[in-house]
Amino acid sequence: MSRNLKIGIIGGGRIGKVHAINLSTRVAGVEVAVMADPFADKKLDTFAADLGITKVIKDYKEILADADIDAVLICSPTDTHADISQEAALAGKHVFCEKPLDPDPDVIRKTLAVVKKAGLVFQIGFNRRFDHNFRALRQAVVDGSIGDVHLLRITSRDPEPPPLEYVRVSGGLFLDMAIHDFDMARYLTGSEVVRVHAAGAVLVDPAIGREGDIDTAITTLWFKNGALGVIDNSRSAAYGYDQRAEVFGSKGSAQSTNDTSSTVRVSDADGVTSGKPLFFFLERYAESFAEELRDFVKAINEGAEVPGQKAALNSVLIALAAKKSLDTGMPVDVEQA
Amino acid sequence: MSRNLKIGIIGGGRIGKVHAINLSTRVAGVEVAVMADPFADKKLDTFAADLGITKVIKDYKEILADADIDAVLICSPTDTHADISQEAALAGKHVFCEKPLDPDPDVIRKTLAVVKKAGLVFQIGFNRRFDHNFRALRQAVVDGSIGDVHLLRITSRDPEPPPLEYVRVSGGLFLDMAIHDFDMARYLTGSEVVRVHAAGAVLVDPAIGREGDIDTAITTLWFKNGALGVIDNSRSAAYGYDQRAEVFGSKGSAQSTNDTSSTVRVSDADGVTSGKPLFFFLERYAESFAEELRDFVKAINEGAEVPGQKAALNSVLIALAAKKSLDTGMPVDVEQA
Amino acid sequence: MSRNLKIGIIGGGRIGKVHAINLSTRVAGVEVAVMADPFADKKLDTFAADLGITKVIKDYKEILADADIDAVLICSPTDTHADISQEAALAGKHVFCEKPLDPDPDVIRKTLAVVKKAGLVFQIGFNRRFDHNFRALRQAVVDGSIGDVHLLRITSRDPEPPPLEYVRVSGGLFLDMAIHDFDMARYLTGSEVVRVHAAGAVLVDPAIGREGDIDTAITTLWFKNGALGVIDNSRSAAYGYDQRAEVFGSKGSAQSTNDTSSTVRVSDADGVTSGKPLFFFLERYAESFAEELRDFVKAINEGAEVPGQKAALNSVLIALAAKKSLDTGMPVDVEQA
Amino acid sequence: MSRNLKIGIIGGGRIGKVHAINLSTRVAGVEVAVMADPFADKKLDTFAADLGITKVIKDYKEILADADIDAVLICSPTDTHADISQEAALAGKHVFCEKPLDPDPDVIRKTLAVVKKAGLVFQIGFNRRFDHNFRALRQAVVDGSIGDVHLLRITSRDPEPPPLEYVRVSGGLFLDMAIHDFDMARYLTGSEVVRVHAAGAVLVDPAIGREGDIDTAITTLWFKNGALGVIDNSRSAAYGYDQRAEVFGSKGSAQSTNDTSSTVRVSDADGVTSGKPLFFFLERYAESFAEELRDFVKAINEGAEVPGQKAALNSVLIALAAKKSLDTGMPVDVEQA
Repeated sequence: MSRNLKIGIIGGGRIGKVHAINLSTRVAGVEVAVMADPFADKKLDTFAADLGITKVIKDYKEILADADIDAVLICSPTDTHADISQEAALAGKHVFCEKPLDPDPDVIRKTLAVVKKAGLVFQIGFNRRFDHNFRALRQAVVDGSIGDVHLLRITSRDPEPPPLEYVRVSGGLFLDMAIHDFDMARYLTGSEVVRVHAAGAVLVDPAIGREGDIDTAITTLWFKNGALGVIDNSRSAAYGYDQRAEVFGSKGSAQSTNDTSSTVRVSDADGVTSGKPLFFFLERYAESFAEELRDFVKAINEGAEVPGQKAALNSVLIALAAKKSLDTGMPVDVEQA
Repeated sequence: MSRNLKIGIIGGGRIGKVHAINLSTRVAGVEVAVMADPFADKKLDTFAADLGITKVIKDYKEILADADIDAVLICSPTDTHADISQEAALAGKHVFCEKPLDPDPDVIRKTLAVVKKAGLVFQIGFNRRFDHNFRALRQAVVDGSIGDVHLLRITSRDPEPPPLEYVRVSGGLFLDMAIHDFDMARYLTGSEVVRVHAAGAVLVDPAIGREGDIDTAITTLWFKNGALGVIDNSRSAAYGYDQRAEVFGSKGSAQSTNDTSSTVRVSDADGVTSGKPLFFFLERYAESFAEELRDFVKAINEGAEVPGQKAALNSVLIALAAKKSLDTGMPVDVEQA
Repeated sequence: MSRNLKIGIIGGGRIGKVHAINLSTRVAGVEVAVMADPFADKKLDTFAADLGITKVIKDYKEILADADIDAVLICSPTDTHADISQEAALAGKHVFCEKPLDPDPDVIRKTLAVVKKAGLVFQIGFNRRFDHNFRALRQAVVDGSIGDVHLLRITSRDPEPPPLEYVRVSGGLFLDMAIHDFDMARYLTGSEVVRVHAAGAVLVDPAIGREGDIDTAITTLWFKNGALGVIDNSRSAAYGYDQRAEVFGSKGSAQSTNDTSSTVRVSDADGVTSGKPLFFFLERYAESFAEELRDFVKAINEGAEVPGQKAALNSVLIALAAKKSLDTGMPVDVEQA
Repeated sequence: MSRNLKIGIIGGGRIGKVHAINLSTRVAGVEVAVMADPFADKKLDTFAADLGITKVIKDYKEILADADIDAVLICSPTDTHADISQEAALAGKHVFCEKPLDPDPDVIRKTLAVVKKAGLVFQIGFNRRFDHNFRALRQAVVDGSIGDVHLLRITSRDPEPPPLEYVRVSGGLFLDMAIHDFDMARYLTGSEVVRVHAAGAVLVDPAIGREGDIDTAITTLWFKNGALGVIDNSRSAAYGYDQRAEVFGSKGSAQSTNDTSSTVRVSDADGVTSGKPLFFFLERYAESFAEELRDFVKAINEGAEVPGQKAALNSVLIALAAKKSLDTGMPVDVEQA
């Protein structure tokens, strides 16, 4: 058996910590050698120490310079993703980068070119592909159970809207929230989205509208293979995080519904009540965050396929096309986004 | 107690027979006095006699001339609906007319004007409004359970495509099939559709495309109250007649699923299998066909509200807007359809 | 086609009326020629007239004497079932008799002997066998889906206890309520019950206990084919009429759950709520009451099999064995009941 | 924050390893200092080293002698549980012992007396109490949702029978398999079982019968609070590990069903198919094995309540009463078992 991979985590925020925990306790064959964060403090030291991570630094460049490090996880703010990805690739590190790589397709393209040249693993953090439900759905498509894909339906609704300060800088509903659904659409159908029409509205909170964003959307997708798709999004579902999908084809249909905290149903004089969908994305997708890193390790060790170059670029292109469609009121070809 | 209403049924085809059976056996306070069909034969005589309907004639005009008849059901071919509706109204009969009243909005408007002037009950046969599932869904909206409506989703898929000869004359997927869903959209949200975008494809059978029609569609709806909606249609669902809807709002979501022939689930080494949706619309909507006639009787006797003038016109306008959107590739305002 | 069967209904109470409505409106090939009830009044006349039943009399013996009548439905009080069944059989009428035929096995045996000699159809009103869910469950056993039967589970709970005056004369929970479940046990497994153990308690209402009855029970069944079964009963389920069953075998398991008034589920901040089981047995089993009479007609015309002699006797024997087991605290062989 | 608890694991078999993994990766505030197994070998060394457990020894007595060790997990063969529990308690270690403590009530009583005198935490490994479904079910009872408990139903079926060599020494279905259900019955109702009636059969495999055991059972329970309960067991469910329960009370009912690997349902021409229950107990109850150890830690640190003395003794008494009932054919009082 080969030695453990040595990983450096760049960014000690919420998602950086999630990955640190998963790598330390739930992913075999790896070791977190170091975490870097410009705001590293005692609290982060303690967090790391509890996981057996003994080195916490401020400057991620030390990680890139360390010949012992095999791979990095880029969990820093979005506007640094592209630069650090390039630097890491040039330093000979495998890269796992949180999504999105960048909101600008040209920057993405340039970054991917650099990364490609390095010939190392590049994975973009579309964790939902590693979710048990969506994997089973994809499997039903792959194994032919539903025949040729005709229709795709995705429902993706957040439990509550993000803070307005976040809305302001998020890039908008399509780039920030629906981008996961765009990647999911590509994943589930196995086909590229070639055209988009988006309808949007401000129904949850007028303040979101004042920031120039929408909170409710219906997006129609045309796929290269001829299938049609639709995504409905809302920033606020009173009952929790609503994450469902259906793929309908010539032989049948496969649907996934939400996960709940238990299977218990209570019947009383008021009705039959079962549990709400899990409320928070970290809870709903907990297992997928571990699973995507297991596949990152497999990709490095055995060349397994992971969401990479195409996922990083095309999901952003679809989001931009959706935005343009919303602005113009007309369908938009993705390659013209 | 008042005497039974005397009804004449115009048209002895499939749907005319369904109504005859329901009126004779499942609707109180009515009596089918006569059936008229230009092709009336011995078989129809026997059918009628078995139900206690003693008079079967060829010319519906005799019904209109009969002062004893209170109301007529118009179950003749679509291209006669408008004319007979007008004649019946002028003859002082309450009218229940199968949908659509006419594919031409101007003809509809003219007919409705005549009918309105007569001041009698006019009901259009949108039976799905009387279905137990859709009624319960509407109730959840009306009683405030889900708050303000933000999103509507309708899935409406036929078990198998109609014969090509029918496709040829049907007016196309929107006018023939989705028109029920357009009416349902108005019914469930309690709001009018003001704008439509339609995406269509030929995925089920290329022969349908050769007839100039589509067999798969995703239609986005903008409602007057600001909500958004989407309908997905297919002419062929391998597992049966798929009729589901969801209304999502500020306080929650209400969803209806399909009816099955039993609640039995079999668990074995291959999985856990439950029954398919009921396959045929007459079976799926059996009860609604009786219920719509009970309400027709109530409308005559007590002035209950039934799908009438607006339902007859607006559903066709939406269908025409959808068709225009499909042709032009752009969203279309319903009032410009 | 043969002429309609002419039926006389003996007893104009609740169940007699249900049968009158079904025979008049939902069962083909029959005609209710007459209803008899010693307390027949204007109200019953009107009820009958509305259904087209023109003859209402006081003395059922006139029905038996009428050579035109082919069959009778015995819907009179339980203590008259045996006598009238015998008289009807001797008068050459097919008999449909409400359950139970009699609480006394000797009376049952004697009656069945008379009926058998007459060689006509004798059907006992175990309507649940004609329910869509239990039929589908039986089908899963018959078609081999679940292999050899190992275990049977029946849950049978009433929505609320009967009036105490009824409890007093009902014969107790086993003879009055669970008797349906005992017949269902025989029907679903296709095997006879040979031994019974019953545990009972008074948990719903102490007044029921003061009448010498129980309101809660768990009854273990041993079947001739080696399988085991269990029935749980309660006189009061706050959420409605709970009627479920499961048959478990060597290859898998088949389960039926309750019927609800719609498939709608509402998700909100409190949970995901779906409809309660239908509350009232006439609503829950509405279709089965029509279906059992369709099979009665078929049995007369074509010799179809219906719940007859064995069902009438053995269900009572099991109930008596259960009662004896409850009294003695020990398992009881059915043939010794 | 206090230092980590130091734990020694006695027994390096399947369940010992499960606990080692959970303590090392999923339970906070603990550290596995040592594992002991008389058959410890290189493989166990490697297993331990991968988890950061640096000490693997043959003789568990070294653990008891080590003053640094706070607590032990007893995962050795059943016939050593009682002795080691006593030795550990006398050595001042908190004890987590796998179930059953012993098949002999007298041995259990003696052991518990020793343990009690030591005044330390003693937990018996009834992991199912820590399962998300059963916890939610218990919660519905505790919070009053279903009112007073009237009926309990447990379905507990293994996916396949154990090897015959195991059947031979297991103590039989009640002591080996149903013991979990007996503890669950006590846990869910919050009441003790006072009386038992058991019916058993050999339907899965005659060879099991030749070993003097049964493979199918229906066990009736009488609870101290007056409620009744029933457990159905089978050694072989073709569709997987079937673990369901229902608690029914004066205000309603709470039911749990099985966990599946995903929520995906496939609808096709054959029906609507969803996933089978998880097949293997280690997968089904994976999370509960971590959770019971988290509570063990809490019990040591904060005095949280865990399944202890009563659970260890009473579940065995119920199992023995069930066995006696099966042998005699009569109900048996638990205190006379």
